[in-house]
Amino acid sequence: MFQSFDTTAEPQFGAERVAQLRDKLAALEIDGFLVPRADEYQGEYVPESAERLAWITGFTGSAGVALIMAEQAIVFVDGRYTTQLKEQVDGNVFIGGDLIGEPPHKWLAAHAPDGFRLGIDPWLHTSAEVTKLQKALAAKNGSVAFLSRNPLDEIWQGRPAEPMGKVAIQYDNEAGELATAKIKKIADGLPQFGAQAVVLTDPSSVAWAFNIRGADVPHTPHPLARAIIFADGGAEIFLDEKKTGAEQRAYLGQMAKQLPPADFVSRLEVTARDGGAIMLDPDLAPYILYGLITESGGTVVSGDDPARMPRATKNSIEIEGSTKAHLQDGAAMVEYLYWLDSQTPESITEIDAVKALEACRASVGQRMQNPLKDISFDTISGAGENAAIIHYRVTYATNRRFKSGEMFLVDSGGQYVNGTTDITRTVAIGAVPVEQKRFFTLVLKGMIAISTARFPKGTRGVDLDPLARIALWKAGADYGHGTGHGVGSYLSVHEGPQRISRAAMQELLPGMILSNEPGYYRPGAFGIRIENLVHVQAAEMIGGGDRPMLGFATLTWCPIDRRLILPDLMTGEELDWLNAYHAETRGKLLPLIDDEKIRDWLRQATAPVCLE
Amino acid sequence: MFQSFDTTAEPQFGAERVAQLRDKLAALEIDGFLVPRADEYQGEYVPESAERLAWITGFTGSAGVALIMAEQAIVFVDGRYTTQLKEQVDGNVFIGGDLIGEPPHKWLAAHAPDGFRLGIDPWLHTSAEVTKLQKALAAKNGSVAFLSRNPLDEIWQGRPAEPMGKVAIQYDNEAGELATAKIKKIADGLPQFGAQAVVLTDPSSVAWAFNIRGADVPHTPHPLARAIIFADGGAEIFLDEKKTGAEQRAYLGQMAKQLPPADFVSRLEVTARDGGAIMLDPDLAPYILYGLITESGGTVVSGDDPARMPRATKNSIEIEGSTKAHLQDGAAMVEYLYWLDSQTPESITEIDAVKALEACRASVGQRMQNPLKDISFDTISGAGENAAIIHYRVTYATNRRFKSGEMFLVDSGGQYVNGTTDITRTVAIGAVPVEQKRFFTLVLKGMIAISTARFPKGTRGVDLDPLARIALWKAGADYGHGTGHGVGSYLSVHEGPQRISRAAMQELLPGMILSNEPGYYRPGAFGIRIENLVHVQAAEMIGGGDRPMLGFATLTWCPIDRRLILPDLMTGEELDWLNAYHAETRGKLLPLIDDEKIRDWLRQATAPVCLE
Repeated sequence: MFQSFDTTAEPQFGAERVAQLRDKLAALEIDGFLVPRADEYQGEYVPESAERLAWITGFTGSAGVALIMAEQAIVFVDGRYTTQLKEQVDGNVFIGGDLIGEPPHKWLAAHAPDGFRLGIDPWLHTSAEVTKLQKALAAKNGSVAFLSRNPLDEIWQGRPAEPMGKVAIQYDNEAGELATAKIKKIADGLPQFGAQAVVLTDPSSVAWAFNIRGADVPHTPHPLARAIIFADGGAEIFLDEKKTGAEQRAYLGQMAKQLPPADFVSRLEVTARDGGAIMLDPDLAPYILYGLITESGGTVVSGDDPARMPRATKNSIEIEGSTKAHLQDGAAMVEYLYWLDSQTPESITEIDAVKALEACRASVGQRMQNPLKDISFDTISGAGENAAIIHYRVTYATNRRFKSGEMFLVDSGGQYVNGTTDITRTVAIGAVPVEQKRFFTLVLKGMIAISTARFPKGTRGVDLDPLARIALWKAGADYGHGTGHGVGSYLSVHEGPQRISRAAMQELLPGMILSNEPGYYRPGAFGIRIENLVHVQAAEMIGGGDRPMLGFATLTWCPIDRRLILPDLMTGEELDWLNAYHAETRGKLLPLIDDEKIRDWLRQATAPVCLE
Repeated sequence: MFQSFDTTAEPQFGAERVAQLRDKLAALEIDGFLVPRADEYQGEYVPESAERLAWITGFTGSAGVALIMAEQAIVFVDGRYTTQLKEQVDGNVFIGGDLIGEPPHKWLAAHAPDGFRLGIDPWLHTSAEVTKLQKALAAKNGSVAFLSRNPLDEIWQGRPAEPMGKVAIQYDNEAGELATAKIKKIADGLPQFGAQAVVLTDPSSVAWAFNIRGADVPHTPHPLARAIIFADGGAEIFLDEKKTGAEQRAYLGQMAKQLPPADFVSRLEVTARDGGAIMLDPDLAPYILYGLITESGGTVVSGDDPARMPRATKNSIEIEGSTKAHLQDGAAMVEYLYWLDSQTPESITEIDAVKALEACRASVGQRMQNPLKDISFDTISGAGENAAIIHYRVTYATNRRFKSGEMFLVDSGGQYVNGTTDITRTVAIGAVPVEQKRFFTLVLKGMIAISTARFPKGTRGVDLDPLARIALWKAGADYGHGTGHGVGSYLSVHEGPQRISRAAMQELLPGMILSNEPGYYRPGAFGIRIENLVHVQAAEMIGGGDRPMLGFATLTWCPIDRRLILPDLMTGEELDWLNAYHAETRGKLLPLIDDEKIRDWLRQATAPVCLE
């Protein structure tokens, strides 16, 4: 299993550990210390060795930061984690804070006493974050102290070792472009910014540029590594030798010097000392790099991570790989949905459903000789009212038994060497009330609106987001998350800068892969989400039109539960899309499925939906 | 007539006037001088006495700026004015520049020689503009010189006198809130910004706050005036005594000192000298005010014009007034459209159509005892291919005779004491090709999408804009302007901050009046726009919904040409809206029209449209 259902936090140690940390802070003469969820690589998933926030507070959510002061300790989390926080931390030690409404810099601006001295580990915060903290404290005659040693690390007994996941080469038949060519393009782009070198601090950028994958953190197959690329085309990659075999070392040796991670600081200093202007992405680079560069005599050039845009705009080989991965994933989903339909509801639980799904993905992967490398995130498996919790993670404590007359929401994905998948289906368990079907149909209308959209060059995600909502808006409803996020190519399932949301100002460009996942959530009652992945492509020229348009091509093929659709609420165009989608799903997936019972199920599940 | 069809520019004087100005610039030792369209009040319309750009270049468009240098003179205009520019200026003296792609600050950054010294009149540029110019020139070791006397004004022989339009009180039955209450709210809001006073530099803000209207510039009934409002509730209004009668002076005397405009500078200096922190809106205030305040020992507090948001969110009396004004305007439009339908196409021209429309508005205004005070902008009257020119202004030179088989676009509005109207209809002249009807129907679908939208609190104009476009996008088409602009209450027909466009980040709030005007333009062939005004209001609670929503209520009532609609392209919901809109139009306007022939026409024009 790539997923655990344990509640792993240890809230019982909070008091003792915070007391130890406070002793350290007193000795350092600082008034407060920030413990973020982020690690030195600012990734979405962090290795156990960097689970500092969970270690000291007990809180295991995927976003949060603790502010430990002499008298008070606050854990800032967002709305989806307020309940979990209460269960996971010792209420005698910690209070909750509002990560969105009043994050640490705003809290400090409002509440810090005059002259407040805030300690931070400059490896764990970006320049953008530090700027906000400094500004907030300057108004209070306070300051940010950059600690050369993280005081929490010093008291962390039994800290797990850093991960040493094996690195694999992502060959050209999947990557579609040689790493040497990618590195050359990045190098060639530097002079226009006046930079002699750029630091890739995002491990996904290193993985993309060097065409390698890793196994250091759960669910995102990048190795924890950094790289420096020089304007002359040279490169240095800071990647532990233990993670590479002879083949990988020889491969990397063609384009870079492979150096131990511990050498990174000294190499950066040397580069800066040569008078170097070094490019950093202020939203990704640890703040400490700014100091290292300037104190060594170099200058920092602020700029977007140069791997970000080419990584987001997939080439045709990557799109082809993703297309194949999605067919295979669709076959696994069909086997899974067939299994689900064959169960007596009361006989299974949400955890059973997660296990069955991973088993389907694994067995189809074996059969098709393209193994499931990982799941792309912890499966969200919510029955009945649990489906209303947008980022629900089932544990033994919350596990719910299926009940007839409810809906079941399953949001999951697989990591395959040729692509990353992410799919949500909401299915009927027995006879579902018509009011829930009505909302299912409204959500489906939004999902079809994105699927069928055409849009001119220059359109941004923000311009498409409302198309997915207007049917719900007209019913007096909405959903509290974006409509889509970017997805990587056998990399992170959450990839920027492309997305579809009210904050999405990035222009949509051909080759970008995005999710299309409107939803609706009625707390305490039911939840709905329908999600396909799509990629942006030039649309065929439209007759009578006057300009070329873009559109989405669908990657995900899997039946959408016909039993939950009220066809009366749909337009002819929407029904046409649905029926064509189902016909194509049937045509594409039937050849991948042997079991005649499952083939029959697929035929039924993809039969046309018509107005009664 | 409130509109002229003359081509008023005098391009033949360009050479001589530029030569005189160059002598002045040489004497002042500056390398270039900017002549903007804007006046000292940064309004959309400027009085003749401030038509500096037209005087020196010949160009009479509503947006542009000239950069006069020793060897070169450039007139920067946007795309809609490139043709007009060529006709209006002397090509031996001026070349054209790109106001959008490379406005003056970008042009200077790219082309100014080292050490370039740019002269500007600091009354004619905002702080935001000056910052950009200074930044561009600093990179060239250049600078901006603030001229204490405008050298163009010094050579302008026969300059018209400043306007002295009569000021009228906007009584409480139209304004809906006493000026004393508005001024008190503005005053009470100042301490939270740490300001002792605020300068209202926008004449529309002065007009709104003091409940007065004026007649200094065409089409926008505000007096050219400024005001200072103090935190203690006191106020000074800088408004020429010649503009006010005894009644107006007594009225204003209750809430403010009325001082001559010439006293404004010294009063601002005195206020600043008392150590005052004075609030200015950086996007509206002339740059010179910054210097006046700081050099007198005061400080500037940057903040939004405090009249802007309350002016944009109309109170119920204003909405009621606007509703009445729109009914009257709708009756005038119906009389006009009837007249249009009764003409032999070849017998009339675009100018005839403008004259007839103004005559209808004037006569209905007389009949209903609510006279047409002005038109709200120069009527856009475009037949056939002229309708494809988005901001077309008909002149004797461009005037086109109507032709059967074409469409005619008319975009116009009236200023009434109870409201400002703005309406566009596109009508069939004879038998129009089906391809043009197809686009008319697609534009109508977009207009209906905005009319029927429901949206949650927090929705911005940017979130609604795409709803008006998606039908066109799916046909491979789009339009190159925003979907809607804010509209004032017997004030400017273009009012911020509310709007519907891809740049509209302002949340839509109850009481805001906006236009809803998608279009489609096929250059050299035809143009379509359909425009109603709407206002934001809380929508009725929707059954089964889970949150309160907002929506638009329609203000404009006037038939939409049924002959141009292809019902097959519309959904049932869209046809329902159209037929209900027409039924309501009929019900509301029939009682306002006496002529039985026109009543019959209205009945026909509002008959239901059904699927064949």
